[in-house]
Amino acid sequence: MADVLGLFTDILGDEGVVAGEQISEDYEHDEALSSHPVRPEAVLLPRTTEDVSAILRTANEHGIPVTARGAGSGISGAAIPVEGGVIVSFERMNAIIEIDVDNHVAVVEPGVRLAQLDEALAPHGFVYPVRPGESSASIGGTVNTNAAGMRAVKYGVTRHHVIGLEVVLPSGEVIHTGGKIVKVSSGYDLTQLIIGSEGTLGLVTKVWIKLSPRLPKGATVLAPFATLDEVTSAIPKILASGLQPLILEYIDLLTMMVIVMDSGIELGISDEIRQTALAYLVVSLEDNHEDRLEQDTVALGELLAGELGALDVFVLPQGAASDLIQAREHAFYAAKTRGFHDVIDVVVPRAKLPDFVRAVGEISQEFSSGIVGCGHAGDGNVHMAVLQEDPEIRNKIMHRLLSSGLELGGAISGEHGIGRMKKPYFLAYEDPTKVDLMRGIKRVFDPNGILNPGVIFD
Amino acid sequence: MADVLGLFTDILGDEGVVAGEQISEDYEHDEALSSHPVRPEAVLLPRTTEDVSAILRTANEHGIPVTARGAGSGISGAAIPVEGGVIVSFERMNAIIEIDVDNHVAVVEPGVRLAQLDEALAPHGFVYPVRPGESSASIGGTVNTNAAGMRAVKYGVTRHHVIGLEVVLPSGEVIHTGGKIVKVSSGYDLTQLIIGSEGTLGLVTKVWIKLSPRLPKGATVLAPFATLDEVTSAIPKILASGLQPLILEYIDLLTMMVIVMDSGIELGISDEIRQTALAYLVVSLEDNHEDRLEQDTVALGELLAGELGALDVFVLPQGAASDLIQAREHAFYAAKTRGFHDVIDVVVPRAKLPDFVRAVGEISQEFSSGIVGCGHAGDGNVHMAVLQEDPEIRNKIMHRLLSSGLELGGAISGEHGIGRMKKPYFLAYEDPTKVDLMRGIKRVFDPNGILNPGVIFD
Repeated sequence: MADVLGLFTDILGDEGVVAGEQISEDYEHDEALSSHPVRPEAVLLPRTTEDVSAILRTANEHGIPVTARGAGSGISGAAIPVEGGVIVSFERMNAIIEIDVDNHVAVVEPGVRLAQLDEALAPHGFVYPVRPGESSASIGGTVNTNAAGMRAVKYGVTRHHVIGLEVVLPSGEVIHTGGKIVKVSSGYDLTQLIIGSEGTLGLVTKVWIKLSPRLPKGATVLAPFATLDEVTSAIPKILASGLQPLILEYIDLLTMMVIVMDSGIELGISDEIRQTALAYLVVSLEDNHEDRLEQDTVALGELLAGELGALDVFVLPQGAASDLIQAREHAFYAAKTRGFHDVIDVVVPRAKLPDFVRAVGEISQEFSSGIVGCGHAGDGNVHMAVLQEDPEIRNKIMHRLLSSGLELGGAISGEHGIGRMKKPYFLAYEDPTKVDLMRGIKRVFDPNGILNPGVIFD
Repeated sequence: MADVLGLFTDILGDEGVVAGEQISEDYEHDEALSSHPVRPEAVLLPRTTEDVSAILRTANEHGIPVTARGAGSGISGAAIPVEGGVIVSFERMNAIIEIDVDNHVAVVEPGVRLAQLDEALAPHGFVYPVRPGESSASIGGTVNTNAAGMRAVKYGVTRHHVIGLEVVLPSGEVIHTGGKIVKVSSGYDLTQLIIGSEGTLGLVTKVWIKLSPRLPKGATVLAPFATLDEVTSAIPKILASGLQPLILEYIDLLTMMVIVMDSGIELGISDEIRQTALAYLVVSLEDNHEDRLEQDTVALGELLAGELGALDVFVLPQGAASDLIQAREHAFYAAKTRGFHDVIDVVVPRAKLPDFVRAVGEISQEFSSGIVGCGHAGDGNVHMAVLQEDPEIRNKIMHRLLSSGLELGGAISGEHGIGRMKKPYFLAYEDPTKVDLMRGIKRVFDPNGILNPGVIFD
């Protein structure tokens, strides 16, 4: 390996290769709970596509495993390196190359952070509406997990907005897929194949993002309900109303308590309702026109308080609304801080949410383990945190949670990805014929298996 | 082959296998212009997924090429069989299996026609907004070309709405991808890979479609412009306005004349404007609320007549509007009837539309050949018909048209697919590294190469 490090230094210079004691412990893990940190042999810091190409050519020749890393904010362990492998960290490839206001396209390097892009887009009246909980996440990371977040209920997920990629293959060859074109039907869609592939097919070095108009007016409504069932049953009706919510989240009682405690938000909920409510729905609307927004907010309030049976309806002042949404986005960290051991992000058909949440309650009771959560209710995507120290019992709980979701027609991960943490479950439940197809595709792109080996499948 | 026909008859019964003289000439071609019809050995008419599985197992064992066929309305020749091969026609698999009003999902067989689905969805207040020109197109065909059409500017293309597939592999194995879930990040997205694969990876036997709320109010505006340049320059500004057009099409002078002549529509355009206008823009809006629609239509009219420089603005009465849109959808048939020899559906970055249209004008003059068209201007997707009998000159024109589009950052096909007709151009211009990856993927799914051989690549 020492020799190979020398080759990497030839490519990147001394300041582009961090090895040995110099490597920060940050690079041993991402945000996955209960994961085992692994120390990489080196952290490589390319500046250009040519750097990445030379790195991969060298690694491929010497059979060195390569794990790509954006911001390290993933929670499935896809950025944890393997023993004897290197990390390619995109922190120095963080330029916003172009904001093309005529074509409504941004071209960015993979190390660009979501918050950084948002700041650059705002003056042009555009938005990139993919908002996973963490705004420090990198574009490269979000492309590789097909990240989603709260606004997916209106805008869809990463794969609906990324229209082109520059990708370096293990051979060092550089391909360009898509571009500033919003549709294409010219051969297999490699852009779509690489989105969500968790660094196993190629390294993304440039991303073409379709931009959306930034709607300036927003309103957020908080509705407490007596039961979680009522909350989840309300979802399809809100979506069918045509109100096009930007955000449609549920928060269970415990999670709401924690969120309020951590953030100190004052939501103005009376003690009486606080004691009666078992779950909350958060609904945000956005518009270009103030009058339409008001009209829709009133209609939403009437729907919630009337037919859908909310205990009350609070239109939140703007400050409290954004505090609540931010606190909800950070619910994962709240669980982490409190020592929770694992998380799931099962997605089920949205009308099956009540069944799934009921199943979770039963599993929680059966194993006397805390399982609390919140979720992108509009998408049927549930985030649950599991409190159970014993790995064996936890494993049983995880199997029960995931298989319950799958039985309802769901999938193991809605937006976090499989990574290393969910791989055993993925391989246990996914159709082997499909896994074989995926393995075959992997071999086409990466015949020597150097890219993130052990992620998604072995 | 006679023996194998017997095997197919064992699977499908006598009425499921059409061979020899009994085969209608329809099955020798699709709607591609200047294509060479090929007579299949047999037309197979499965009724179930099990039938399709048994057909493919048998064909795979005997090395018989299989071409899937929906409605035969494609225009790239992807449904033209190969010598010695069979057609699997999905005309008897045309059931709408389920309309799930809670999950906003329809589950359909591939032979279902778009018009049939629309009729079934209307009473539930839903719409499947993919509208290629031909409403008799089958769902299976539109999935395999990643069809789009006029409403893509607002709703996106097929791959944004199809969320699950049942697919039979050449081995006869049946896989299920996705389902009633609106997002997923659990391994490579095989749904997305199969969408647009033109029958070369597997045969689609069931489709899960995400439904959208059907907005009841609509308005259509027709704006004549003095130059085509002004029309195409107006597009990005209309899209940035936040008015969210449902349809945003341009029609050039000749195409408009033909459309009006064929359909007999009375658009109420004065002779003076008719003589001055060189191109037209058609913009449709839709909404839930009549008052918002009116407000937006006024705003659109002001934008068009003001900053964008339209010669006039006509808000079309509903009858004339739907006649015009239908006539525009049938522009392809107008070109076909008039003996045009080829069509392109190049897609370019939308702000490059003026450059592309200018290049087309130059090519038309240089070769003294008629090249007229219209297009999904909001998507940068241009439909042009070429009138040039001489195949050699036509080939030169096609190369020039397509390479002009590619030089502007475009792609050969926005929505028609590559099929057989555009394959030579695709192979001439596409990066060989990408074509190799596609060939590798093809081998993973179809190691014996029985599925639509010669489509997309050889």
